[in-house]
Amino acid sequence: MQIWRAPLDAMRFLLFETLDFEGRIRALPRFAELDRETVAAVLEEAARLAAERLLPLNARGDREGLRFEGGAVRMPSGFREAYRLFAAGGWCGLTIDPAYGGQGLPQVLQVAVSEMISAANMAFGITPGLSQGAAHALELWGRPEQKARLLPKLASGEWSGTMCLTEPQAGSDLGLIRTRAEPAGGDRFRISGTKIFISAGEHDLTDNILHLVLARLPDAPWGTRGISLFAVPKYRLAPGGGPAAQNGVRCTGIEEKMGLHASPTCTLVFEEAEGELVGPPHGGMKAMFSMMNAARLLVGVQGLGLAETACQSAVAHAGERLQGRAPAAAQRPDLPADPIIHHPDVREMLYAMRARIEPARALALEVGMMIDRAQHAPDPGARRAAEDFAALMTPVIKAHFTDFALEAALTAQQVHGGYGYIREQGIEQLVRDVRITTIYEGTNGIQALDLLGRKLPAGSGRMLRRFFHPLEDFLARHRDAPALGALLPALEKAFGRLQRASLELARRGLADPGEAAGVARDYLALFALVALGWMWARMLCALAARGEAAPPALRRSWPHLARYYHARVLPLSATLFARIMAGSGLLALEGVAPGARSR
Amino acid sequence: MQIWRAPLDAMRFLLFETLDFEGRIRALPRFAELDRETVAAVLEEAARLAAERLLPLNARGDREGLRFEGGAVRMPSGFREAYRLFAAGGWCGLTIDPAYGGQGLPQVLQVAVSEMISAANMAFGITPGLSQGAAHALELWGRPEQKARLLPKLASGEWSGTMCLTEPQAGSDLGLIRTRAEPAGGDRFRISGTKIFISAGEHDLTDNILHLVLARLPDAPWGTRGISLFAVPKYRLAPGGGPAAQNGVRCTGIEEKMGLHASPTCTLVFEEAEGELVGPPHGGMKAMFSMMNAARLLVGVQGLGLAETACQSAVAHAGERLQGRAPAAAQRPDLPADPIIHHPDVREMLYAMRARIEPARALALEVGMMIDRAQHAPDPGARRAAEDFAALMTPVIKAHFTDFALEAALTAQQVHGGYGYIREQGIEQLVRDVRITTIYEGTNGIQALDLLGRKLPAGSGRMLRRFFHPLEDFLARHRDAPALGALLPALEKAFGRLQRASLELARRGLADPGEAAGVARDYLALFALVALGWMWARMLCALAARGEAAPPALRRSWPHLARYYHARVLPLSATLFARIMAGSGLLALEGVAPGARSR
Repeated sequence: MQIWRAPLDAMRFLLFETLDFEGRIRALPRFAELDRETVAAVLEEAARLAAERLLPLNARGDREGLRFEGGAVRMPSGFREAYRLFAAGGWCGLTIDPAYGGQGLPQVLQVAVSEMISAANMAFGITPGLSQGAAHALELWGRPEQKARLLPKLASGEWSGTMCLTEPQAGSDLGLIRTRAEPAGGDRFRISGTKIFISAGEHDLTDNILHLVLARLPDAPWGTRGISLFAVPKYRLAPGGGPAAQNGVRCTGIEEKMGLHASPTCTLVFEEAEGELVGPPHGGMKAMFSMMNAARLLVGVQGLGLAETACQSAVAHAGERLQGRAPAAAQRPDLPADPIIHHPDVREMLYAMRARIEPARALALEVGMMIDRAQHAPDPGARRAAEDFAALMTPVIKAHFTDFALEAALTAQQVHGGYGYIREQGIEQLVRDVRITTIYEGTNGIQALDLLGRKLPAGSGRMLRRFFHPLEDFLARHRDAPALGALLPALEKAFGRLQRASLELARRGLADPGEAAGVARDYLALFALVALGWMWARMLCALAARGEAAPPALRRSWPHLARYYHARVLPLSATLFARIMAGSGLLALEGVAPGARSR
Repeated sequence: MQIWRAPLDAMRFLLFETLDFEGRIRALPRFAELDRETVAAVLEEAARLAAERLLPLNARGDREGLRFEGGAVRMPSGFREAYRLFAAGGWCGLTIDPAYGGQGLPQVLQVAVSEMISAANMAFGITPGLSQGAAHALELWGRPEQKARLLPKLASGEWSGTMCLTEPQAGSDLGLIRTRAEPAGGDRFRISGTKIFISAGEHDLTDNILHLVLARLPDAPWGTRGISLFAVPKYRLAPGGGPAAQNGVRCTGIEEKMGLHASPTCTLVFEEAEGELVGPPHGGMKAMFSMMNAARLLVGVQGLGLAETACQSAVAHAGERLQGRAPAAAQRPDLPADPIIHHPDVREMLYAMRARIEPARALALEVGMMIDRAQHAPDPGARRAAEDFAALMTPVIKAHFTDFALEAALTAQQVHGGYGYIREQGIEQLVRDVRITTIYEGTNGIQALDLLGRKLPAGSGRMLRRFFHPLEDFLARHRDAPALGALLPALEKAFGRLQRASLELARRGLADPGEAAGVARDYLALFALVALGWMWARMLCALAARGEAAPPALRRSWPHLARYYHARVLPLSATLFARIMAGSGLLALEGVAPGARSR
């Protein structure tokens, strides 16, 4: 069974006691009015919506799937009603500026809300998630008139948004995009081309869909420098603002996928579709990156949400399924066998999930706060520092969270034994759904290359220092903190390895970028290991500071989980470090394609 | 696309040049006639059948699935014809004694053939795989009259077999079995109970199905000591031997599963079904274990086969998909982008698969040979040694091979990017199919407990020494072998860790079995790492010995892969060792179920 209850205790404790919401978010002029009660109410309301409305639709949506008829996509039953409630609750425009009809709440709350939506029903969350990304790009790059016209539609949920990047020949490599945009007078352009794998590209949840499309202008230079961003509505607007005639966009099919059966993945054919430019000509990649960064963070958070559901479901099953006896002595002699949660190897699997989920949530919220500070801190230095940190951590969150989420879903399935493999239980759905997260919005390999090839060398290590310096300070300040115990030396050791690996890879990257690229994923994993270790340390400090006032469940579980993290998870840094430092020339083509040379 | 070509070069080289087929199998009186040509012909014939008949049905079977109507199961189209060819080719009785109509070939060839069948169509291979297991149990435990009556049916493929163990309340814990067997005069018993998750429990491939069923006699002691094994045919035999009346066995449903859509997983209800005892009363677990050991080896080999298909498919895709440019310089300036096989992070993924598959195949064949020697070596000491080695390695092969096979399938999917997620490409099917292998025939957690709790302490470490001593000898003899280079010190280091971990866990197991059980999976992984490292070393030695006479593809690829294995895979031993040695008391219940105490 899919089991999920919103982790509200943890979220509140992280925001207010660990990450200093008051000092870092409420202190910003924009959020001065945002008191604890409001934040708590938002979280509780989202939790209720997710648990009561979205979770019950999750397995049903998977089973029923989508219907594609004559270019239209029919969502599974219940999705339209749920979306209506969702939009009416203001969730589509949670972070959009109130000037455009949004709630104007900080990104950090969006992170928490997105986790809950994804945990309850990832497929459902994709449509509003893309609307958010589109709105974010418009907020940053749209002209005032465009914003005033388009943003309220997205904020209200009346329209949804998409990101139209991929083409059959252009996936990771957007430089290969062929979709064309011909000027059609004034601000208008005619867009023609084929886009594939477009999430929420067609559906019946909203009256209109605003496609943000990457295309080339006639005079575009070759490659990614020649790509522009266009807003192309499914229906062209009548002068009054309402939807009017069908635009030249057709959905020619939806993919049959491994999972996410309730989320349409569309092929869209644009034939002289009318669109408008967003941002400067040939500036599409930059505009798209603002959308993609938000989307990458969201994908990491999707992983986190799914991992939470996987973990809760596994804990519940392990507490109920009776098989065998605990090794030392029967735990429930009154029953024919012990619940399998008393078997150490089962419990180990539960720990492996939970010990990563808790600090991952902290890191996601931390980055959410940094995004808010990057946008709204009065001091430009503070803005810059926050922006760097968020940029640095975005690929880490996207890749590491989805890697461990996939692992968590597989682990939950393993805990369920044979029952995990049959559809009725709903656990295998979690695996099929979460599987895409390591692939879309840039594969995790691309994320690792982003971290290693772009973020690491940026400004001679400036971005890296936004993480390393505060961590060094933290370690220096807490050397003797009794709350941290053996976690601190273990973290210091792993951090030392990360520092040495960073130096080595910076050196190697200058000499031979290919050599460094071969260990990019190991580097990202080491990076994440240290970042989550740091979060654990901060969480334990916060717990110690609050003492008896901290929520009992956290007080009982976190110290055990943190101890497990340093004893059983941080040692991974040894292997990752050895892999990174292992000599060069290890990946000759002949090793995997021995006939390639002679072909 | 699912791409697979039989790895015949590697199989032949492993059998004849690496593992000394002549000296260890042909030297056995039973197989004295078995020359290289015959072995090669068997392998080639199996390869042809798999590639031409089974592979084309794999994606089709997944898509079409099974039909369940009125208790009958209809297999996907093509499966009946393929099975007829398969049976006619003598593949069902490959290792069965010719006295009972089998081919009398050694188990080691069954290992190679099973790998190919699973690689091409795992779902298809399950039915004959279970027949093999049933035949094996009958050969070991049946009375001569039973064998003469039943084995020829299985050898010819006219009947198939099943293993009926699991019940809703009894999965890993077979002591909880409730199915009853009432004596009905003479050798006859009436079996009643419900069995679930029965692979190939019902289908239309054969005229009859022989269920081997675990059940309790009326006077049975409690737990696993009170379980007996019965042979229960779907149709009761007429005196002439042909099938006659329906027996009291009904298939009441088949599971909808994540994968293996072409392999029926049945609920079987036994209602006073007539059966006969196999082996002694209350001796069912022992008899079942002979079946289960063979089945566990087969499951590991299924994993290997799927991993091979995953890897070949990924290599093919990576050689064709054009995205981006290789880091240092364009590799195919004539094309708009380079094939992604030139991206180091993609190539790393391919290496990660291939570097484990090759030595895994060697280990599987090695164990196959040991099983043959355990049965047929004239010297009792040699039989005993071989039996120990096979028993020791069986859980390692089952668990480690399926763990890395799942990883390989996921990696192949990752290499395919978005295309890996859509059904049309057939790659996501590999993930869904292979997923069950870490669960069935004893979860991988159970395998790890078997290794740690049963095999490690057996005879004060006698079983362990069957692996450690030859490895020590090997290391001593090859200390300066130029062919091995840096592999040897890396292997020695990992082996040293394994030895220390074994001692520590033996000690800990005596003191507190629960403490040891929490790291059982890490121990198995460390064990497998060293075993595969040893295989690599032996493979490199064999390659050096053959020089130019070795197949070019192996000469070109193996040294690179082995080097990758020692530089990037063996370092995992550091982390596994640290995890094993990390202090105790790490898995308190409160960490994952903080409310449990107060409930």
